[in-house]
Amino acid sequence: MTYPDIGHFVPRRREECGIFGIHGHPEAAKLTYFGLYALQHRGQESAGISVSDGCQVRDYKHMGLVSEVFKEEILKQLKGHLAIGHVRYSTTGSSLIANAQPFVVMHGGEYYAIAHNGNLVNAWNLRNELERRGSIFQSTMDTEVIVHLMAMNLGYGFEEALVKALGRVRGAYSIVMCSRNKLIGARDPKGFRPLCIGRLNDSYVLASETCALDLIEAAYVRDVEPGEIVVIDEHGLRSMKPFPVSRPAYCIFEFIYFARPDSSIFGQNVYLFRKRLGRLMAGENALTADITMPFPDSGNYAALGFAEASNIPLEMGIIRNHYVGRTFIQPTQAMRDFGVRIKLNPVRELLNGKRVIIVEDSIIRGTTTRTRINTIRDAGAKEVHMVVSCPPHRHPCPYGIDFSTKGELIAANHSVEQIRDFIGLDSLHYLSLEGLLKAAGTTTRNHNFCLACLTGDYPVPLEEVVRKDCFETF
Amino acid sequence: MTYPDIGHFVPRRREECGIFGIHGHPEAAKLTYFGLYALQHRGQESAGISVSDGCQVRDYKHMGLVSEVFKEEILKQLKGHLAIGHVRYSTTGSSLIANAQPFVVMHGGEYYAIAHNGNLVNAWNLRNELERRGSIFQSTMDTEVIVHLMAMNLGYGFEEALVKALGRVRGAYSIVMCSRNKLIGARDPKGFRPLCIGRLNDSYVLASETCALDLIEAAYVRDVEPGEIVVIDEHGLRSMKPFPVSRPAYCIFEFIYFARPDSSIFGQNVYLFRKRLGRLMAGENALTADITMPFPDSGNYAALGFAEASNIPLEMGIIRNHYVGRTFIQPTQAMRDFGVRIKLNPVRELLNGKRVIIVEDSIIRGTTTRTRINTIRDAGAKEVHMVVSCPPHRHPCPYGIDFSTKGELIAANHSVEQIRDFIGLDSLHYLSLEGLLKAAGTTTRNHNFCLACLTGDYPVPLEEVVRKDCFETF
Amino acid sequence: MTYPDIGHFVPRRREECGIFGIHGHPEAAKLTYFGLYALQHRGQESAGISVSDGCQVRDYKHMGLVSEVFKEEILKQLKGHLAIGHVRYSTTGSSLIANAQPFVVMHGGEYYAIAHNGNLVNAWNLRNELERRGSIFQSTMDTEVIVHLMAMNLGYGFEEALVKALGRVRGAYSIVMCSRNKLIGARDPKGFRPLCIGRLNDSYVLASETCALDLIEAAYVRDVEPGEIVVIDEHGLRSMKPFPVSRPAYCIFEFIYFARPDSSIFGQNVYLFRKRLGRLMAGENALTADITMPFPDSGNYAALGFAEASNIPLEMGIIRNHYVGRTFIQPTQAMRDFGVRIKLNPVRELLNGKRVIIVEDSIIRGTTTRTRINTIRDAGAKEVHMVVSCPPHRHPCPYGIDFSTKGELIAANHSVEQIRDFIGLDSLHYLSLEGLLKAAGTTTRNHNFCLACLTGDYPVPLEEVVRKDCFETF
Amino acid sequence: MTYPDIGHFVPRRREECGIFGIHGHPEAAKLTYFGLYALQHRGQESAGISVSDGCQVRDYKHMGLVSEVFKEEILKQLKGHLAIGHVRYSTTGSSLIANAQPFVVMHGGEYYAIAHNGNLVNAWNLRNELERRGSIFQSTMDTEVIVHLMAMNLGYGFEEALVKALGRVRGAYSIVMCSRNKLIGARDPKGFRPLCIGRLNDSYVLASETCALDLIEAAYVRDVEPGEIVVIDEHGLRSMKPFPVSRPAYCIFEFIYFARPDSSIFGQNVYLFRKRLGRLMAGENALTADITMPFPDSGNYAALGFAEASNIPLEMGIIRNHYVGRTFIQPTQAMRDFGVRIKLNPVRELLNGKRVIIVEDSIIRGTTTRTRINTIRDAGAKEVHMVVSCPPHRHPCPYGIDFSTKGELIAANHSVEQIRDFIGLDSLHYLSLEGLLKAAGTTTRNHNFCLACLTGDYPVPLEEVVRKDCFETF
Ligand SMILES: Nc1ncnc2c1ncn2[C@@H]1O[C@H](COP(=O)(O)OP(=O)(O)O)[C@@H](O)[C@H]1O
Ligand SMILES: Nc1ncnc2c1ncn2[C@@H]1O[C@H](COP(=O)(O)OP(=O)(O)O)[C@@H](O)[C@H]1O
Ligand SMILES: Nc1ncnc2c1ncn2[C@@H]1O[C@H](COP(=O)(O)OP(=O)(O)O)[C@@H](O)[C@H]1O
Ligand SMILES: Nc1ncnc2c1ncn2[C@@H]1O[C@H](COP(=O)(O)OP(=O)(O)O)[C@@H](O)[C@H]1O
Ligand code: SF4
Ligand code: SF4
Ligand code: SF4
Ligand code: SF4
Ligand SMILES: [Mg+2]
Ligand SMILES: [Mg+2]
Ligand SMILES: [Mg+2]
Ligand SMILES: [Mg+2]
Repeated sequence: MTYPDIGHFVPRRREECGIFGIHGHPEAAKLTYFGLYALQHRGQESAGISVSDGCQVRDYKHMGLVSEVFKEEILKQLKGHLAIGHVRYSTTGSSLIANAQPFVVMHGGEYYAIAHNGNLVNAWNLRNELERRGSIFQSTMDTEVIVHLMAMNLGYGFEEALVKALGRVRGAYSIVMCSRNKLIGARDPKGFRPLCIGRLNDSYVLASETCALDLIEAAYVRDVEPGEIVVIDEHGLRSMKPFPVSRPAYCIFEFIYFARPDSSIFGQNVYLFRKRLGRLMAGENALTADITMPFPDSGNYAALGFAEASNIPLEMGIIRNHYVGRTFIQPTQAMRDFGVRIKLNPVRELLNGKRVIIVEDSIIRGTTTRTRINTIRDAGAKEVHMVVSCPPHRHPCPYGIDFSTKGELIAANHSVEQIRDFIGLDSLHYLSLEGLLKAAGTTTRNHNFCLACLTGDYPVPLEEVVRKDCFETF
Repeated sequence: MTYPDIGHFVPRRREECGIFGIHGHPEAAKLTYFGLYALQHRGQESAGISVSDGCQVRDYKHMGLVSEVFKEEILKQLKGHLAIGHVRYSTTGSSLIANAQPFVVMHGGEYYAIAHNGNLVNAWNLRNELERRGSIFQSTMDTEVIVHLMAMNLGYGFEEALVKALGRVRGAYSIVMCSRNKLIGARDPKGFRPLCIGRLNDSYVLASETCALDLIEAAYVRDVEPGEIVVIDEHGLRSMKPFPVSRPAYCIFEFIYFARPDSSIFGQNVYLFRKRLGRLMAGENALTADITMPFPDSGNYAALGFAEASNIPLEMGIIRNHYVGRTFIQPTQAMRDFGVRIKLNPVRELLNGKRVIIVEDSIIRGTTTRTRINTIRDAGAKEVHMVVSCPPHRHPCPYGIDFSTKGELIAANHSVEQIRDFIGLDSLHYLSLEGLLKAAGTTTRNHNFCLACLTGDYPVPLEEVVRKDCFETF
Repeated sequence: MTYPDIGHFVPRRREECGIFGIHGHPEAAKLTYFGLYALQHRGQESAGISVSDGCQVRDYKHMGLVSEVFKEEILKQLKGHLAIGHVRYSTTGSSLIANAQPFVVMHGGEYYAIAHNGNLVNAWNLRNELERRGSIFQSTMDTEVIVHLMAMNLGYGFEEALVKALGRVRGAYSIVMCSRNKLIGARDPKGFRPLCIGRLNDSYVLASETCALDLIEAAYVRDVEPGEIVVIDEHGLRSMKPFPVSRPAYCIFEFIYFARPDSSIFGQNVYLFRKRLGRLMAGENALTADITMPFPDSGNYAALGFAEASNIPLEMGIIRNHYVGRTFIQPTQAMRDFGVRIKLNPVRELLNGKRVIIVEDSIIRGTTTRTRINTIRDAGAKEVHMVVSCPPHRHPCPYGIDFSTKGELIAANHSVEQIRDFIGLDSLHYLSLEGLLKAAGTTTRNHNFCLACLTGDYPVPLEEVVRKDCFETF
Repeated sequence: MTYPDIGHFVPRRREECGIFGIHGHPEAAKLTYFGLYALQHRGQESAGISVSDGCQVRDYKHMGLVSEVFKEEILKQLKGHLAIGHVRYSTTGSSLIANAQPFVVMHGGEYYAIAHNGNLVNAWNLRNELERRGSIFQSTMDTEVIVHLMAMNLGYGFEEALVKALGRVRGAYSIVMCSRNKLIGARDPKGFRPLCIGRLNDSYVLASETCALDLIEAAYVRDVEPGEIVVIDEHGLRSMKPFPVSRPAYCIFEFIYFARPDSSIFGQNVYLFRKRLGRLMAGENALTADITMPFPDSGNYAALGFAEASNIPLEMGIIRNHYVGRTFIQPTQAMRDFGVRIKLNPVRELLNGKRVIIVEDSIIRGTTTRTRINTIRDAGAKEVHMVVSCPPHRHPCPYGIDFSTKGELIAANHSVEQIRDFIGLDSLHYLSLEGLLKAAGTTTRNHNFCLACLTGDYPVPLEEVVRKDCFETF
């Protein structure tokens, strides 16, 4: 393991993750495996499961996809009726197995396992405070801060300690946690990240998205509410709401891109939401062309709506390769745009000579889009226009979605015309903020969404990281 | 390794494969890697590359996907300007690494590597004959028969020996082969399987499908013709046509299902062919429904054509999971239809209460289709109809496509009504043979296709396997 | 990972280990690798190295032998001029990678890596106290207690914090530790375990035994003294002696069996010590026989002394297999005494009809010795006598040598006659305590040794483990 | 796999190997595993087992030690009552898994597995002849020639075919072979390599050395005689002696160095043979010194004899490390003689100021001996003399022992004085040829040994390799 150079010693930020928990099922680990399988898109870097049989706690976590990490013989050893699981995504090189989740500690004769989706804005300051009191951290994860805050307060009992710990952290979190006998779910007061409750016969299930319930054939019960803590044990499910109520801030980007189309989150189906985005784009822009086509698969659903509303016929003008994995061998020098072409190959016979409208979900840095447009032009397209199903991304996200830093967001310091030219389009059309909220069935006034990456209006203030002190002691 | 019990000792039959070769490129192995990557759908069981630097020959082959088998450090060791590669699919349990290709032999101070797509109908009889003469076989592959036949005739020179060997075998084969200095491509006189020639600067390329040329940015030159042998060396490409000319028998199933939509084979683009199938199905059947939807992805292209021609709106009513690999952990007893749902999850909010037309490429055994229809009904669809883009599959294929035995083809001994009821459809509509050939721009009279699995009319007669003699000697 | 059931949750005890450290060498990790290689006999279960380049800290540890754990490419990544290493032995099933050493923590912007040989007698009580204050432990190792005690006191500066931490622990410890810039060595006030200082050009080296200095061609400087802490940085070596001086208690069993014969520890060469034991045994017992033979290799050196002094010729009557690894495939039912015979095979032609004296270092449980004697008799030996180079082992060791529990020590509750009969000997002769100390050049009065396992006289009192409280809180 | 460059395309020569076979035991593979374990010293590069249950044949072979290659779960799959096994040693870089044994072929509905120890002198010529007839070889092993020769003659029946095949090959071979129902053992007419027959209840066992019988508790029956073929099946053991009888040529070097000391081969125990060599050396040379010491372990047994006869006391002045594996990480530049010191570490306190006589079995290239003597001198030895337990090695071995080529044998072109100076000795004394044969109980006149590497007198003439033809055809 390589530990970071002190000069760059920053706890990791902005982690996209998927979480799952189940209580009261004899095959808890296996169902968690399938739950994570369904949530794989929320994190492809590592996967982990912790399971309790009421006495022993076992866990297994490793870098890789769920299907790579867990094999039959490993699942067999993860015996117990209570399990939580986690898939994790990271974009930086410092991705460590030590930072894989669930995070398990043994303390005072009990075990605690915790899995976390979101990002805390005051983790670094809390960590410094705790280290000065003598706490020793094993990882650079926000999650561990919550556990240490709990350990300080376990004298008050487990649930009170959890409430006290969550009372100190600020930012976005959806959490599943287990001790030897209890399953806990919690969501921050703003409800940035989704977390839902399902039921499978006598078992309770917690999951980031409903597609995980579908796969294991659990029935959707309700969402864990913003600011709610649910405690599940042999007596059933109890709810606590220890924090003051405020207006929610559901992440709109979960709808636009991140969640699975067959999931329902924040009370709505994702596929139908995206199709509405497509129809609204057609309404906002009157374009002429021979064919409509998505960049598959993220653009598919808006493209269906757009084609329907605009009457410009839909074609699958670019084919998504079935076998695209996560790593590639470096192509030879001469092979331009290779990384793009191996994933998406244009159908030359179809595109040649055509005027094309591309439907894209969003543009973050613009570089991938640019090379994709290149291959479309190489295939002979005569005109290439693009419609994007949300307003420009101009601001970084501190609540758990990694767009990379502000400097990399192309819209942060370029006009729409500049972006159009950079990408090499004949025209470029973003959906308006009003259109986006209309698709959500609400308005710019009354909505319950976080729109910070589009508007710069942050629902939870960012906290100054006091970095100096880490050099003081030595 | 486990060698088969003598009682069941049968050479493997019906292998679907992808082949690739390149001559005259300093990074021959790397380009072969990318070529195989593009041909991955033709075989997911094993992958192999043989490379020659004019003196040493090196190869590497293993069970697994191309991206699993080859890593940067392995490719680096495969130095040379001349390479061939192979991906292989097998459905039986006896899949052996010894049967992976390319097959390499050293003989008389020379090396020969060979990779093969297709199936010979007289392999078993030739093998018995060769063994009686003292030949020792290393594998159970058809390919090895060709090599032994060559070895017997090498006194006549290499090319003459190859012609003599191919003159003895009957059935379907597309072959790439290399010695230390030459790249050879060959296709059986009927041309069952595709094989095309490309050009990348000064290099010649051979590949099963044009999508492999696209990925490495090679230009398509022409197909290797049925019955043609091409020999490529530092002097360029020479063609031989040593066998009598007859009417070709291109495998129609490559168009219907097997080839990639972005490829062109037998002179036509696959995507556009399939879209025509969809339009023709709409013409043959006047159906009423709320939505058209494919089973993605094989049904997508015909569905586009069908929706356009029928004016019944297209929806992606079932979502194909991005992370579906090849093996799954066994689900719990209670999880019905799991294998289907993990790959294709229906969008309940979309399907609920709808009349649905499913577009499917073909029906082989019917069991998978049946469970898929089940999940569509569970999601609330009110009516479910199906259109299939070819006539019923009633006969086994001896030329390299593994449909399993005749007994497993549902249409072999069931009427369309029986199939409809078995699958659980409200109605079922196969495309006519005329429609199929019309999409191909030809007629039942004049066509150049093999249709044996649909009509029972076999272009090359099957050969009786004389099994008794294997017990005689001992 | 499986965490222990709470009912059996006991920190691991009695670990035999080897430790090594080096400061100021550009290939610190590589030299640590060789140092550990030479110390492999002190621990075969896991191996680990931590290295610092003054800024980043890297470590790698795994289950297995040094040569299995570290490969060239791993060593290459362990860059830095300062390194410590550890090999660890454990006899219980609960051996965990989480318990491998060195143990690394990052705290307050600094890293601390620590490797430990020995056993603390008050670790469990200290741990309970720390957990009640909010500390979270990652492992069940004694070592971690020291680190947490330090973390509580880092406000006083690093060295003061270490002194305060070591001031609280009791028992046996030899420690090497590093921060990003300093190498520390420490030995408990009784000096139970060896630890020496060497010099290689401008680098300082710390090692459990001198054989590690020999292999890397470092010169022996002196031992770290009992109760001494040495701090090595770019300014050289500083010594601290913060604890009250008392009479040392060097582990006599390191001489008898554990240390390598080519090492010098506690000021004496092990080989010559053992040879003196052999001569003294011949003096204490006048025996008649045809041949003297050791159980190789532990008995070799005493056997040389015995044969010389008794004039009974030495033979290698039993051959030690060169390829004996750590695990065996279970032999078939019918193969008696297999585990013994695979390691030591008697030379039948030599032993047949002979009167034999076996020289053994010590007898712990007696079962292995018994089966070895069996095979000697099977080979035809007429009489079998045994001399043992120390008094009977009657008491368990709480200072880091794992003899297993008192109940398993055959001499704890059997007379010499009973042991002789159990093992199946014609006669059995233990060396006297006086003889043992005479070989050490001292007497029962004036010696500086721990003899607790032989006499029951414990130099540091054992501490009652208050186990009840781990059930109180929950 | 890398196939050799044609310019260097030479079948491998001089392979030291161990072979084992068992018929009629329900755990045939497990007993073969243990047999190979005992024969590990005869080949450490690869290990393989083939097993038959009378119907299916299974095998497993891999690079590595027996204990690395075979794990419980693999052995479990190797079901059957009939098994053969092989361990193989090779010194060249071109060691290939394709060359691992047993070599298995399926031919005419039967399986043949063969394992071979020795080297054929006419393999290359036979191979060329067979290839010209159309045979295709899979490997570069001599063994495969035998199999192809058999395949040509299987029309005459299996045993006749084997006799015909062995009648064509010349050189050294001890062979075990199995078909689905028969176990065969064969030894060349000169009997260069050992092969013995054992009995374990109702099972027959074949093994290179008796130590393999000891380990599985089989009783020694007799040796397979030179020129004998034994066929073992359910009817028992039958013997054939189809070849003309001639004077045997047992490899003397098996006694001097290669075989295990606890084995008996060619009718004598190895340990006692070596001890006699030591006594005879003392008789031939009257030397004065303080201590006698071997280079362990190969010198141990002669050293015991020498010390006894010369009355110069024996010491283990150099300690053999227990953990020396086969590969090492490259030491740092500055570490001289490292490869030697890691295996054998001198005991400085013992050697300092002493006059030492080293007992060595043989000197091949002299380089290792030279560096060992260096470390003895570094440890302070005042005088260093050496006695060697055989005459100088001046000639290469074409019968299966790899001394490397003639050019590398130091005695081939250096006088004893030159060797003494090269190694850095005060004096050097080889045993005479008379002495060597006297230890064997025979004389230079009447012996049955091969002494070719010592005398240049080759019992089977070497065959000119006609290399030209491999370039002719192409
Ligand atoms: N690498 C690929 N990228 C895109 N399409 C492919 C690829 N390989 C095969 N195809 C197409 O995908 C279809 C098979 O996909 P799908 O229907 O999802 O699988 P299946 O029907 O075999 O379960 C085939 O029609 C084939 O033309
Ligand atoms: N397992 C899944 N199955 C189907 N769709 C998924 C899955 N995971 C994510 N998605 C959807 O696929 C889209 C991302 O796919 P794609 O556009 O191919 O990748 P990207 O845009 O990240 O390169 C997202 O919109 C997401 O809603
Ligand atoms: N498994 C074994 N157990 C004990 N002795 C063995 C074994 N294998 C070989 N020997 C003996 O050990 C000697 C070789 O050991 P050694 O001298 O340490 O190695 P080398 O001389 O090859 O470096 C040989 O003389 C051989 O008789
Ligand atoms: N690497 C080593 N090289 C040589 N001797 C060693 C080594 N490690 C330990 N020893 C010595 O070998 C003896 C243990 O060897 P042995 O008797 O074969 O094993 P055991 O008695 O543990 O079964 C100990 O006395 C120890 O001093
Ligand atoms: S800033 Fe954007 S991505 Fe982040 S939570 Fe808010 S809406 Fe979601
Ligand atoms: S039988 Fe069918 S699958 Fe086989 S080659 Fe002919 S058309 Fe293709
Ligand atoms: S009790 Fe025995 S083994 Fe333990 S330290 Fe004391 S002398 Fe050593
Ligand atoms: S030449 Fe030497 S090594 Fe070879 S067989 Fe003859 S005696 Fe043995
Ligand atoms: Mg996308
Ligand atoms: Mg399909
Ligand atoms: Mg011992
Ligand atoms: Mg030796």
